Amino acid sequence: MTLDELNAASAAQFTAALGAVFENAPWVAAAAASRRPFDTVAALHEAMTDAVRATSPDELTEFLRGHPELAARNVAMGAHSVAEQAALGLDRMARDREAIFGGLNAAYAGRFGFPFIICVRRRTRASILAEFERRSLQCEDAERATALHEIGLITRLRLVDLVDGPGKPVAAGKLSTHVLDTASGRPAAGMAVELFEIDGDAAIKLAGAVTNADGRAEALLHEGGPLPIGCYELRFHVGPFYAGRDDGEPPFLGVVPVRFGIAEAEGNYHVPLLVSPGAYTTYRGS
Amino acid sequence: MTLDELNAASAAQFTAALGAVFENAPWVAAAAASRRPFDTVAALHEAMTDAVRATSPDELTEFLRGHPELAARNVAMGAHSVAEQAALGLDRMARDREAIFGGLNAAYAGRFGFPFIICVRRRTRASILAEFERRSLQCEDAERATALHEIGLITRLRLVDLVDGPGKPVAAGKLSTHVLDTASGRPAAGMAVELFEIDGDAAIKLAGAVTNADGRAEALLHEGGPLPIGCYELRFHVGPFYAGRDDGEPPFLGVVPVRFGIAEAEGNYHVPLLVSPGAYTTYRGS
Amino acid sequence: MTLDELNAASAAQFTAALGAVFENAPWVAAAAASRRPFDTVAALHEAMTDAVRATSPDELTEFLRGHPELAARNVAMGAHSVAEQAALGLDRMARDREAIFGGLNAAYAGRFGFPFIICVRRRTRASILAEFERRSLQCEDAERATALHEIGLITRLRLVDLVDGPGKPVAAGKLSTHVLDTASGRPAAGMAVELFEIDGDAAIKLAGAVTNADGRAEALLHEGGPLPIGCYELRFHVGPFYAGRDDGEPPFLGVVPVRFGIAEAEGNYHVPLLVSPGAYTTYRGS
Amino acid sequence: MTLDELNAASAAQFTAALGAVFENAPWVAAAAASRRPFDTVAALHEAMTDAVRATSPDELTEFLRGHPELAARNVAMGAHSVAEQAALGLDRMARDREAIFGGLNAAYAGRFGFPFIICVRRRTRASILAEFERRSLQCEDAERATALHEIGLITRLRLVDLVDGPGKPVAAGKLSTHVLDTASGRPAAGMAVELFEIDGDAAIKLAGAVTNADGRAEALLHEGGPLPIGCYELRFHVGPFYAGRDDGEPPFLGVVPVRFGIAEAEGNYHVPLLVSPGAYTTYRGS
Repeated sequence: MTLDELNAASAAQFTAALGAVFENAPWVAAAAASRRPFDTVAALHEAMTDAVRATSPDELTEFLRGHPELAARNVAMGAHSVAEQAALGLDRMARDREAIFGGLNAAYAGRFGFPFIICVRRRTRASILAEFERRSLQCEDAERATALHEIGLITRLRLVDLVDGPGKPVAAGKLSTHVLDTASGRPAAGMAVELFEIDGDAAIKLAGAVTNADGRAEALLHEGGPLPIGCYELRFHVGPFYAGRDDGEPPFLGVVPVRFGIAEAEGNYHVPLLVSPGAYTTYRGS
Repeated sequence: MTLDELNAASAAQFTAALGAVFENAPWVAAAAASRRPFDTVAALHEAMTDAVRATSPDELTEFLRGHPELAARNVAMGAHSVAEQAALGLDRMARDREAIFGGLNAAYAGRFGFPFIICVRRRTRASILAEFERRSLQCEDAERATALHEIGLITRLRLVDLVDGPGKPVAAGKLSTHVLDTASGRPAAGMAVELFEIDGDAAIKLAGAVTNADGRAEALLHEGGPLPIGCYELRFHVGPFYAGRDDGEPPFLGVVPVRFGIAEAEGNYHVPLLVSPGAYTTYRGS
Repeated sequence: MTLDELNAASAAQFTAALGAVFENAPWVAAAAASRRPFDTVAALHEAMTDAVRATSPDELTEFLRGHPELAARNVAMGAHSVAEQAALGLDRMARDREAIFGGLNAAYAGRFGFPFIICVRRRTRASILAEFERRSLQCEDAERATALHEIGLITRLRLVDLVDGPGKPVAAGKLSTHVLDTASGRPAAGMAVELFEIDGDAAIKLAGAVTNADGRAEALLHEGGPLPIGCYELRFHVGPFYAGRDDGEPPFLGVVPVRFGIAEAEGNYHVPLLVSPGAYTTYRGS
Repeated sequence: MTLDELNAASAAQFTAALGAVFENAPWVAAAAASRRPFDTVAALHEAMTDAVRATSPDELTEFLRGHPELAARNVAMGAHSVAEQAALGLDRMARDREAIFGGLNAAYAGRFGFPFIICVRRRTRASILAEFERRSLQCEDAERATALHEIGLITRLRLVDLVDGPGKPVAAGKLSTHVLDTASGRPAAGMAVELFEIDGDAAIKLAGAVTNADGRAEALLHEGGPLPIGCYELRFHVGPFYAGRDDGEPPFLGVVPVRFGIAEAEGNYHVPLLVSPGAYTTYRGS
């Protein structure tokens, strides 16, 4: 669907096309229809957000209540929410964590009167849990503002997916790595590198790659969407790379883990390794 | 017991005192008794080793057969061996690993005709297992030489424990760390550091400490015996050290794991961390 | 001048256009004219080089003798050579160094029977001098081969300048830098950086720049020709960048010099600085 | 001379022995004589300093006027001052710098009414000049306080030299280096290292050494007195250390200069180099 098509469509067609972007609230799209034409996707999103802001406090509470609980079973939710929660595995968590979410959901709803709303595409599961705990303790005004901000993030990503056109809001982060063999002063080619998501004591493998002639691990590159906020670990298989040097067994450096946090989902994270058999340096590059 | 006392004792007293140093072989001590006096503990150990070397091939096989199986239940073994194996937890392994040792023991004995002998005080459990597998594939001559070399290492440590006197053979390695905060150019004081032994996917905590005013973690220092050959991980709690800088949540550096191998049980391993909020360097120092 | 135009020109026009590429040897261009058309500039250069290779040993000596002495006064030389030597300042050296070149020229000509030939666009003055001394000691066969190789490098650069068209031989190196402030984990913006050529104890300033928002010093970038082989120094003005931190006077890091050699005139040299108030790391990147 | 001897001496002997410690002011020693006995050298120094503090503003001005001008010719000064200024070469400066000092001396005396007083043993010449310029602009109260503070530093060092006994005030700084070859994970033995004092564009060689088996350059170690505040450069001859690796000519790393400032004359400066053929790291260690 292009922005031009949306600008040219009837109000009913427009509302049908975008009615699901804001959860259980097709009236948001209907209100934005009257403000056409839009020059950019960002302007379209701004108009929809304006419609939410124009509601009365009671209407706003009703709107917030229209969102599904997080990680809940047997709850009606829109197709967008179903897909987003499933991508993160929130529909198939271990029983103990499911219980934690259940307890948080109940306490949150009891305190604020609406479900906990968060843009799940911008966070790892561990980070969602930490944020759930933090936000449960906020004062009510701050929490309503945070919930609206998250709805803005959620719907911006949905619009970017749905609509082609100029002026798409930037919604992509970038993660990359690079390995230099400082013993030779050359890129380290042919080194295995893995990327893990860290969730407490668990490490969940996300991707694996082998560095190319320029020392880059292209297949690990994350591009095209937000970087989920959370903790990660790169593991560089340095031992096999330097094998045959007779440095004793085990070598000083075998697997080199580099653990780092991502706090900016739309940021640029370059995490290189400068390595030799007896030392290494890593840093947040750019 | 001092070297002077051993030099002055009767042959029977001498043999009684040192008869258990070589497993099931009091004749080794008896042979050494006739070569007294000894100037150094090292010379005493050398004389005992000479007695083993002077045996015929068949006697040597018999001597090797006098050693207990590793990690075996219901096996008679000397008090030294009991204590050494227990210190490593070889008497209380998980069932699956016990089965692996059982299989290796059977295959090894079938091939070489005597039990697998290794100085368990110089290796981690994972390293013993790796060495067991490696040595099982050696040719017979090389393996008999390796077994005798390991007996030399075992008995040297036992003598050092038993006898006070000049010329003790060096049998100690050293492990230390040091944290510098390069953002301030000062030692990083008050940072929590932990030391783990790495055994496959498991990390077994060995020690924890907090860096002092000079950035050193004294309580992590290993001194006084061999460093068990194997894989280790230091974990530096960098996140809390830099807390309050508003670098986003989670910070780029939270827990910094530094994984390294120790191949020289009597070596000096200094593994420092040069750290700032956006980078770190680690290396094998001296 | 385009390759198409050269392919379409008369033999006389072709020879007139390219006759000066090989020093005092318009017959080289004349010989290549008959092998037209050329698909690429590289093929044109190859054809000219073939013409030189096809000469007899005596003709080759004559050809080599047609080259001017290096850094000599009152010597007739082609316009290309005049410009190339002047760019390096070989026409206005200090008297003492002029005397050194004079001595080397005389000894070289006495030994080999032709002048010392080197591609001056690919080296610094200090590197030319070092190479002059090294080559003066080579055996005659090796030195004739080196002289011909250098003529290939000289004429390739001249052709690349003269002729537009597909398939230009690669003749560019790249030098760049990048500064990261690891204390903040961000690029270091606004830091002054200078580039010097090192000639013995002297440092000749080549360029100065201030890092941009991404920590890059664009104005220092060398692009578009060979990197002269030689020694260089980047000077990073770290002191003012961290001023106001009350680290004492003078600060631990004021001017950070990074001295490095370039051995590959067509190579890619990325020489970054990872810096904090108490430490820095530099390396050959890619 | 020991503290015990001074405690037992007559007042006249005591004053004769220490009368020259405070410039042209034997009355300072005379006043301290009556407060004997002293338990520590520090207490003796404190008593002498008290005598200065007890003077009236006019007497204090007179006392300050009793000090010699810095770097002045044909000026009467005590033997201590002669030796201290000569050690720094302040008696044999180039004419242009002598003129700068002359101008500063005249301006300073005109403004404050007494000569510029500074502890020359705690600074390099360049640092004295920078401090002279800075202090010339201070307000009068701050400058009188600074002058008295410097007199405390000067006399403390003189007392430490003259008197043996317990409780000597700490007056020593330490400078050391260490080179690790991270390509091998071992100390870099046999590498030449030089230490220079930086004075504007000039580098004055202070010492040279070759690293020992532990990678340390003992002969460069500064121990036993204050580290003169100022700028320094270590030069590590990395090129010859890695010679024979065929990394091209010149190698990426030849001479590695590490330039650093010393702001704490009694501080501990450990400036190591972690180096491999393609990278290095340096930092302020401890």
